[in-house]
This record gives sequence, structure tokens and C-alpha cells, in this order.
Amino acid sequence: MKFTVYKKDSDYSYTYGVYPTLELIKYRPDCLVQLFYDPKGDSNRGLTQIKQFCQDNKITHTADSRLVQKLSESENAYCVAQFKKYSPKLNPQSNHLVLVGPRDAGNLGTIIRTMVGFDFTDLAIINPAVDIFNPKTIRASMGELFQINFKYFDTFTDYQSQFSRDYYPFITSSPNKLELTTFTGPSSLIFGNESTGLPDEFNHLGTSISISQNRLIDSLNLASAVSIALHHFYCSFLKS
Amino acid sequence: MKFTVYKKDSDYSYTYGVYPTLELIKYRPDCLVQLFYDPKGDSNRGLTQIKQFCQDNKITHTADSRLVQKLSESENAYCVAQFKKYSPKLNPQSNHLVLVGPRDAGNLGTIIRTMVGFDFTDLAIINPAVDIFNPKTIRASMGELFQINFKYFDTFTDYQSQFSRDYYPFITSSPNKLELTTFTGPSSLIFGNESTGLPDEFNHLGTSISISQNRLIDSLNLASAVSIALHHFYCSFLKS
Repeated sequence: MKFTVYKKDSDYSYTYGVYPTLELIKYRPDCLVQLFYDPKGDSNRGLTQIKQFCQDNKITHTADSRLVQKLSESENAYCVAQFKKYSPKLNPQSNHLVLVGPRDAGNLGTIIRTMVGFDFTDLAIINPAVDIFNPKTIRASMGELFQINFKYFDTFTDYQSQFSRDYYPFITSSPNKLELTTFTGPSSLIFGNESTGLPDEFNHLGTSISISQNRLIDSLNLASAVSIALHHFYCSFLKS
Repeated sequence: MKFTVYKKDSDYSYTYGVYPTLELIKYRPDCLVQLFYDPKGDSNRGLTQIKQFCQDNKITHTADSRLVQKLSESENAYCVAQFKKYSPKLNPQSNHLVLVGPRDAGNLGTIIRTMVGFDFTDLAIINPAVDIFNPKTIRASMGELFQINFKYFDTFTDYQSQFSRDYYPFITSSPNKLELTTFTGPSSLIFGNESTGLPDEFNHLGTSISISQNRLIDSLNLASAVSIALHHFYCSFLKS
């Protein structure tokens, strides 16, 4: 097997660095295929733990600074783990975050990290969208990708036909303020993409919501908006 | 004058694209030095407005696709504006966001965009830190940089000696929850950098605050944490 930088159509992807790799062996240990590490990191406690895991489970682990450098696209990582992609299922009882057409790998990773911090474990992504296994997404998620369920759908209608529940599309012109919203049953918080927001057809779906803000900016950054929404959602359950 | 990609020690910086350039001529029109545009964008309304502004104010504007491409580091921008750097002052009556050692240009821009949406107009940055005039910061801020005041300080003590007010350092281990905090006088919300948070000496400054979250992640992304804090701050004033 020849190792090249990540390609979307590959069956494998990579974690860059110690922390995301620790999350991989904690939450998706069966997916780890092999490890490349840089001996410069030998005194790093996390790396020692990862190498021990490989040893215990008879997983190939190879010291190869140059390959680490190449695969991680010069991210100064101490290790790169190759893992097999997998296809989790969404939990129909959980709250879902639904992203319609997200484009930015880094933004998606940041959102996943926020999800995990606020007990959102299920992510639906409506195509066309960025590839969740892009190593940039995994890095921005700090490896928290391995803690969540996710699934791609070709259209929102496909998602809707499988998951009947309370829908909350986020639309900046909505008169319903997030801060005054209370959530009850399994809910789907729905966000549009970074540049255009949600298409008009979402205006009449479920209960639209907006985040209070002044009119001095066009809109919030997607990951910022999602963070504010998930935090409010999390706290409203803490109170109840 | 020879035009090269942005360098930190230059007296000038650039906006990439129509939207940030519109913000520049709206909020810092005196700083605009000259414009380069791509005739491919001639039907773009924003670009037409910018060229009109240049014409009315006798500012050089040159059609040069290749230079636009080069200066904007291939961001597919319709224009690039060169502007003179400036040094705003912080308003002692306003609430301040204080970032101690932020490193990431994109994160800083996202934070600035969020600040403007939530009525935070003053940003203090404690060195060593990323350069706020980095075009990547300006782009991530969507040009909202031009709406705020900002100032760099060599140490937090320097900042503190000039601005006596309520300090709120954000520290994940703090028992004081953001969600239960009410703010009164001019306040400074203080955040550490992306990887290490605030140094220990902040533990005993003012009133520390934490954002409610589970323990499944190491910490929130800096821009996400700031967004949640500024949103809470904004809404607590809406209510009062």
C-alpha cells in the first residue's frame, strides 16, 4: 500500500497529531489501521499511550518522520494514524443538528467539537456538502468527530422522511428569538451554509428561530451561530 | 511602488473582495489608498459602487486581473483595495473584549465579526499575538474590522494600568457560570489563547467565569466561546 495525502474517494482517512489520535483509539479503536510516528515525540505522554495501544493490539506502528510530515501536510504533528472510514447511524431519540450544504472543512470541525461539549451526539448533513472525513475537519474537531453519529442525505426531504420531530430552522429574519425558545421533545436544529443561509423553502417548516443581534453585520459566522444555539439548548435543559 | 503580497511590517494592508472593501469605504474611507479590480466583476453592484467612490474621490482604480489574483493569494476576489494602517484608541466607557495572545488569524476575524453583531466595539490584544491587519483576519471578519477600535498591549498589566473596570477572565474551572452572571458597569471580558487558555495569574483577577458545558471535550474553540459570552452579554442588556 502506498501512502498519499488524503483523497475524498479513499476508504481511509487520517488523524493528524496526538490528541485526535487519542480520541480515535478511545471512541473508534476498531477503525485504526496503522500508525506513523515521529521519534521526536517520544517523550510525549499521549504518543507513548498510542504506541502502547498499537503494541497491545498488534497494530503496525512505524517511526517515519518524513511520512508523518508528508501525510499531515506539514502540520508539525508527532503522529498520523490511518483509519478506516465508517458509517454511523443517527439515533432517532436524540436531538439532531442538521447542516444544509456546509462548505468549510474547518468550520464543520469546530461545530462538531461544540456539539460534543453540549451533548449533541447526532449530525445530519444535507448534500452537496464538505466531506466530514477530510483531515482538516478532524483536526478542527480535535478528534471529537469520533464521539458523534453522522449521516449524509441527498435532500432535506430524505432526512425528513426518516426523522419526524420538531424542526427549528435558523433564519435571521425570524421573529421567534432563540433566547425565548424552550425545547421539549427530540428536536432538529437546522442551519444553512456559510454564505447563503437556508433556502426559502425552510421559512414554513416547523418553528423558525433567530439569534438576537444588532443589524451591523450581515450574519454571524456559521460555527458561532451554532455554538450560541447549542449552548442555549444545553442550558435550557440544565434549568429544567 | 511595487505591489507584493501582504507583509506584517508594511504600512499598508489589503482587503480581498467586494464586501470587505465596501466596509472599508463605509467606515474608514480616508484609509483607502487605491483599488485594483478584475473586469470580470463589472456587473457586480458592490464593485460598481466601490469604483464610483474611487472616481468621486479621485482615488486610483486600475483594472488588473492578474494583480488582483496575486495580491489576494488566489481567493477569487473581484477586487483588492490597498489601505493605510491606522491606530484607533479604545473607548474607556465601553465594554472591552481582551484577548491574551491570540494566534490564529481566521479565529481573530471571526471574533471581530461576532463583536460587531453584539455591540462590542473595543478590542484589546495582549502580545505576543497575531497581526490584526493580516488580510486573512480582515477576510474572516468580513471587513467588520473597520467598525471596531483595537489596541495592542505588551502585557496585561499595561492594559490594566490604563483601564480600571470590572474584569471577567474566562477560565474553564471557574465555579461562576456565565449563564448566571449579570454585568453592570464597563466590563472587560478576558480570554486566553486557542491552545492554553489564560495563564494562572488570571485566577485571582476580578470575577472569573466559565461557560456551562459537559466534560467530554477539552475546551470550546476560542471563537465559539467568545461568541457564546458576547451573546449572553448582549441579551442580558436587552432584558434589563
